[in-house]
Amino acid sequence: MYAEFFFCPEKRWLLDRISIIVANMEKKIIKKLQEAMGQVNLLTSLEERSCYSYDASGQNFMPEAVALPETREQVAALLRLANEHRFPVIPRGAGSGTTGGALPVQGGLVIGFSRMKRIVEIDPENMIAVVEPGVITGELQAALKKQGLMYPPDPASLRFCSIGGNAGECAGGPSAVKYGVTRDYIIGLEVVLASGEIMRTGVRTEKGVVGYDLTRLFIGSEGTLALFTQLILRLLPLAQAKTTFLLSFSSLAQATGLVAKILTAGFMPCTLEYMDQTAVQVVGDQLDRLTPPLPEESKALLLVEFDGNEGEVARQGKLFAEFVHQQEEGCALRQAKTEEETQELWLARRSIAPACLSLRPHKIAEDVVVPRSRIPDLVQLTEQLAQELDLIILTFGHAGDGNIHVNIMVDKQNQEEYTNGLQAKEWLFERVLALGGTLSGEHGVGITKSLFLAQELDSTALAVMQNIKALFDPYNILNPGKIFPG
Amino acid sequence: MYAEFFFCPEKRWLLDRISIIVANMEKKIIKKLQEAMGQVNLLTSLEERSCYSYDASGQNFMPEAVALPETREQVAALLRLANEHRFPVIPRGAGSGTTGGALPVQGGLVIGFSRMKRIVEIDPENMIAVVEPGVITGELQAALKKQGLMYPPDPASLRFCSIGGNAGECAGGPSAVKYGVTRDYIIGLEVVLASGEIMRTGVRTEKGVVGYDLTRLFIGSEGTLALFTQLILRLLPLAQAKTTFLLSFSSLAQATGLVAKILTAGFMPCTLEYMDQTAVQVVGDQLDRLTPPLPEESKALLLVEFDGNEGEVARQGKLFAEFVHQQEEGCALRQAKTEEETQELWLARRSIAPACLSLRPHKIAEDVVVPRSRIPDLVQLTEQLAQELDLIILTFGHAGDGNIHVNIMVDKQNQEEYTNGLQAKEWLFERVLALGGTLSGEHGVGITKSLFLAQELDSTALAVMQNIKALFDPYNILNPGKIFPG
Repeated sequence: MYAEFFFCPEKRWLLDRISIIVANMEKKIIKKLQEAMGQVNLLTSLEERSCYSYDASGQNFMPEAVALPETREQVAALLRLANEHRFPVIPRGAGSGTTGGALPVQGGLVIGFSRMKRIVEIDPENMIAVVEPGVITGELQAALKKQGLMYPPDPASLRFCSIGGNAGECAGGPSAVKYGVTRDYIIGLEVVLASGEIMRTGVRTEKGVVGYDLTRLFIGSEGTLALFTQLILRLLPLAQAKTTFLLSFSSLAQATGLVAKILTAGFMPCTLEYMDQTAVQVVGDQLDRLTPPLPEESKALLLVEFDGNEGEVARQGKLFAEFVHQQEEGCALRQAKTEEETQELWLARRSIAPACLSLRPHKIAEDVVVPRSRIPDLVQLTEQLAQELDLIILTFGHAGDGNIHVNIMVDKQNQEEYTNGLQAKEWLFERVLALGGTLSGEHGVGITKSLFLAQELDSTALAVMQNIKALFDPYNILNPGKIFPG
Repeated sequence: MYAEFFFCPEKRWLLDRISIIVANMEKKIIKKLQEAMGQVNLLTSLEERSCYSYDASGQNFMPEAVALPETREQVAALLRLANEHRFPVIPRGAGSGTTGGALPVQGGLVIGFSRMKRIVEIDPENMIAVVEPGVITGELQAALKKQGLMYPPDPASLRFCSIGGNAGECAGGPSAVKYGVTRDYIIGLEVVLASGEIMRTGVRTEKGVVGYDLTRLFIGSEGTLALFTQLILRLLPLAQAKTTFLLSFSSLAQATGLVAKILTAGFMPCTLEYMDQTAVQVVGDQLDRLTPPLPEESKALLLVEFDGNEGEVARQGKLFAEFVHQQEEGCALRQAKTEEETQELWLARRSIAPACLSLRPHKIAEDVVVPRSRIPDLVQLTEQLAQELDLIILTFGHAGDGNIHVNIMVDKQNQEEYTNGLQAKEWLFERVLALGGTLSGEHGVGITKSLFLAQELDSTALAVMQNIKALFDPYNILNPGKIFPG
């Protein structure tokens, strides 16, 4: 294991050892890879490989080579070689995943999809798009907007994450509360199997039930069953208007208590995000720009948006304001007056994840989900854990669907704090499952949750999944070491 | 094969032969089944078994025994016996499927789920329901309505079909154009595997990406991978209001041409159904009750509905009426004034499938899907086929998502007509695939489309699906003879 060496000067000695291992192991394979890919699309120098050694999980593993294919045939050729020589193949979108999905934890070849980023087709009449996996989610959304269309999934990283990675992890985002997640918008795939065979799944129509649903089996499979080379997306008409509310509460319980009430009252917001006091503080700079400023005593915020056509948005906005004023929970309500104000609010929301590193150099970031009505219990637990274990824990995220981001802040150099952080994670997971929840709503299992898999899945389901893995990938060459405990 | 003997007096001689076979084959197994189930829940007499020998496909195969379990443990016991003695097990919901999914084509044991019909839980705060597979879809919807909730999938058979069968086939319905199909509302399952093991999949939260998506792999697997014993459903807040329009056209092309336009204009109807002239004629009795009556020259109808809250429905209705009047395609627009009028329209729409048997005693009923913009091409083809092959062909159904029901009417006693009907089906399928479509939008493959599977699926995908089948069901005891060509 070459973990975490790259940015750790004290482990620098590993570097030489690794490059020797690679040179010894892979010379003839590297040559074959170069033949298959051409020099230009295969990276072998330490400097180049190091750029593909980390992702947003904060961990590092050095790949032995990096291929940047431009065509499905190149991907197939790489898989045929991997199948013949039994080396690991790790698909990589933009490396924005937080559970280590793109990390070569057992060495091998990283396949980066950054050069397969064509929008192959946009069909406005049938509201379908066909794209390659390297397309940046936000860029696709911008292209669709010009044609009056929308692809709803909106992970916080949408300006740099890719559709292929989103599909691999079944990414969500704030809009999931109204529109659902990635799996709800991918209706067909072109994939390359471990054998190097190219296969098509699904349909390019709204409905389709011919044979088993391989498309959804692959979505969220974290690169362990097949590699995507093309994706067929269903689209929606672009929402014409949007209105944004910020609700500021003087107690955390008031904020979380209101979430289920908003939805059971029949409102269908396209955003229902929540931030606790610590989250509010870390993006204080952004929020301070608001005029008028937030109330001093703000202990929690809800960001609520409605989209649709002009008339309906105005109507929903009016009803929502009335609804909030009728609630016993006291809160300060503001409605964004301008597009700039909305952008400020979103910048604040999207900045929480990176900004919280100002509190501690590392974080244990989890994206647990509980039934909406149990959010207050979950948040109460995190406050308790923070106190008992003397930790800073932020909670924020997609309250509308019960998908709460829990960021346990630690300094890994501080052994006690780190141990406490890991303990908090363990207790958090136990409690989430006891509340009827799940360990991951949109980030996947990767390497950061695989040890906890058996706590959530029943043992038969786990065995079935491992059998499926063995069926698709008998030599365990596709993203080995992910999802399943080693 | 015991096909089609039951209602064919000339094949009546088969009856005795079959009961002898059963008696010879199954005596000791039947005894074990009785031990596992109790006398009351195991049907073995010819009269009782014959009630489970047919479904809405119009074909007949006699089961050797019928079990009506009341608990998951009984289902597990049955599967353990089947696994040990290698007899076929055929799950049956309400037998309303049209592709023969519930038929014991290789004999064996039918497991009917009519006694597992508890609504285990409705959780309004989290908008979740937990149900057993035998719950009637319409009865669930009625129970949810009382709590202000909705489970959208609405197959035409909703008054008698069951949730388990809906899940097995991934049923759709008119509301799919806005709300999606069964797979979009089932988030977790309890299943019994071929081995008799009980397994849980999925979550009871809005999001969840831990491990492979076994839930969606099982949805639409037509009883060939596992049997459902419990289903976790996500729900929506009940739409408060609805408005219904009937558009009557003097040409078929005008009606089908308008479909894609309605949706690309940004309207989001919850119904966008279409009926051709023959379909209109077969339900003429129902439609004649409308006051004022339909225009004489009506060549095609569109049934369009909007749902949501009062204000939005009124607004959408107004905008839609304006939109229709602006179109070049001339059509007569009527808006249902009363709930009774709406019910009349729906009765007419839902009666097409049974009523068309007044034209010919048998039908070849297909539920093909094409991209919405290609509906006019598809409908034109069916007119051509009807003329060339001297057949009556009705087209109607879910135009909004391109899912057109094509009913080829035949008299099977008339050999030439029947042969022509089968030829029409073959040409229809070829053309649908050439238009970028799929052979089934909501009915599944069953036995009626399995011979055509290889035309739609690429050969690798077909092999992968067969491997998955073999993984879950190594002895081919779960609904053998379905989906895959024999």
